[in-house]
Amino acid sequence: MSKLRLLASPRSAGRRLRFGGEELEVEALDERSFGGVDIALFSAGKVISKPFAPIAVRAGAYVIDNSSCFRMDPSVALVTPEVNGDVLDAINAPCIVANPNCSTIVALVAVTPLHRAATVTRMVVSTYQAASGAGAAAMAELEQQARDWSADRPLQTEIFKRQYLFNVFSHNTTIGPDGYNEEETKLLTETRKMWNDDQVRVAATCVRVPVLRAHSESINLTFARPLTEDRAREILATAPGVRVVDDRAGNRFPEPLDAAGRDEILVGRIRADRSQDPGMGLELFVCGDQIRKGAALNAVQIAERLLNRLTQPARADAAGLRQDRPVASGAPRSARC
Amino acid sequence: MSKLRLLASPRSAGRRLRFGGEELEVEALDERSFGGVDIALFSAGKVISKPFAPIAVRAGAYVIDNSSCFRMDPSVALVTPEVNGDVLDAINAPCIVANPNCSTIVALVAVTPLHRAATVTRMVVSTYQAASGAGAAAMAELEQQARDWSADRPLQTEIFKRQYLFNVFSHNTTIGPDGYNEEETKLLTETRKMWNDDQVRVAATCVRVPVLRAHSESINLTFARPLTEDRAREILATAPGVRVVDDRAGNRFPEPLDAAGRDEILVGRIRADRSQDPGMGLELFVCGDQIRKGAALNAVQIAERLLNRLTQPARADAAGLRQDRPVASGAPRSARC
Repeated sequence: MSKLRLLASPRSAGRRLRFGGEELEVEALDERSFGGVDIALFSAGKVISKPFAPIAVRAGAYVIDNSSCFRMDPSVALVTPEVNGDVLDAINAPCIVANPNCSTIVALVAVTPLHRAATVTRMVVSTYQAASGAGAAAMAELEQQARDWSADRPLQTEIFKRQYLFNVFSHNTTIGPDGYNEEETKLLTETRKMWNDDQVRVAATCVRVPVLRAHSESINLTFARPLTEDRAREILATAPGVRVVDDRAGNRFPEPLDAAGRDEILVGRIRADRSQDPGMGLELFVCGDQIRKGAALNAVQIAERLLNRLTQPARADAAGLRQDRPVASGAPRSARC
Repeated sequence: MSKLRLLASPRSAGRRLRFGGEELEVEALDERSFGGVDIALFSAGKVISKPFAPIAVRAGAYVIDNSSCFRMDPSVALVTPEVNGDVLDAINAPCIVANPNCSTIVALVAVTPLHRAATVTRMVVSTYQAASGAGAAAMAELEQQARDWSADRPLQTEIFKRQYLFNVFSHNTTIGPDGYNEEETKLLTETRKMWNDDQVRVAATCVRVPVLRAHSESINLTFARPLTEDRAREILATAPGVRVVDDRAGNRFPEPLDAAGRDEILVGRIRADRSQDPGMGLELFVCGDQIRKGAALNAVQIAERLLNRLTQPARADAAGLRQDRPVASGAPRSARC
């Protein structure tokens, strides 16, 4: 990448931010912003992604979108590089690539290597989700509740409309007619899409816990073919993006405080499920930084893999990336892959 | 009950406590403490229960023991009145009755009515357990961590050897060779014993969350016979000890802060499990006050049911309770039921 441009709302335009030793000025996003852009990382929610991601693609950019707007669009790739990074290798023209939901990324980085070995037919997940998933204001509110509680002041409950400190509550997304909330449904639909498997069954219960920035998940797996606990441990020990933390004697397992600020998904409590036939089930407890691997890092990894492939001289032409000038502009193209 | 006596270690002897408008002096426990006692509530851990519960029974007392010491003893009844209170009706001489572990009580008050309707064959549980399960010092440490964090002071980590505030960690009990910790194994063994069903399969993942005094559990059930979500809801609406909190439109479900200080187990997120064949699985989220229904209240309910039965004139003789003097002493009897 030879040049980075920062685009935001007019409110933020003119702010100066440092990146890679350089100071950059934030520009106001508009319909002409994407001329000359090769890769555009969108992370401003559906309201911005929906109109502007197609505009960026028409201007010749590969868009990596962090919102949920395009994830289930059949023409858009939904990618966690460790899970299905190969789909990026089929992309040969500017398009949108969707970044999955944080809970799905955290679960699937750990589970996919086991799925490849023994085919997961059913996954039951209970999450322990951090404030970070609801944004910086939610993290600040949780911290402020701790300060106010300590000072015996009334707690402010603007974001979640309830006390979050010392409490646990169901994930604050809309509940569908089947009783599952959107966060839970994403775990099902995104898993099926990334695994390209319409048969896998996923039940999830998504819960917020008073943690600042890493999500934890208790995961119960059922396999189509036997997989021993020892073999699962071997697979996870060398799985990309995974760090096994599983010290039974020392009672040390993944904890969100240890996952915060790290790139890897921590995996532990690895054990054969005693409630299933021997070898046919496994239990795990995983933690992953929701802001890093659950969002920003995953988007950057997609960008790196795309960039790496697109700048290989032999394939660059086919992929539509002009080698003569690293900042691309482009004629209108389809808005979707 | 005509008279209450308070027994504790010599360290606490002489303290005066108020109960029922009366001030009572704590006496030091010794081998002669149980003369004249009809019902003895033990809540001082295995080290005290193991030697003293049999002594109390030999002295003629019905012992209700809160420790894990006798729970799996085949000759001892393990009772949650809403689950298997009928076993108390078969008791006709002083003996030990064990109070189950808190996580088992909280789960089974909600699940047993469904088990009666459709026979639960498998239960997958993930817990969100409060500090209270580890005692008053653990609750105080969590509160102190909030104060110290707010004041930017170093956190004290005596009880759990790690930061508890804004963190989540695996339950701090010993891990067995199968990878399950003691808390998780209790959910299996105690469920089997209370349901009198050696076939039911239970997998649990027990986790501490930074909550002060009520436990939450995400529960996934598999049935032998179909049970619709609507029928499950009807059953739970009238189940003893249960309060349904399941407002999908308002996004209000059981929360530990709402369960704290209450006698009922809160049950919500009631939904047909989308990962099982229609009607064959159900998901629930439950919260219960670990100190009340998870411990003290359950013991008192056992005592009330025993007392109620034992003081019925027609059966009093057979049950060994002397009507002429409400405080019983007794000749040596078997230490177990």
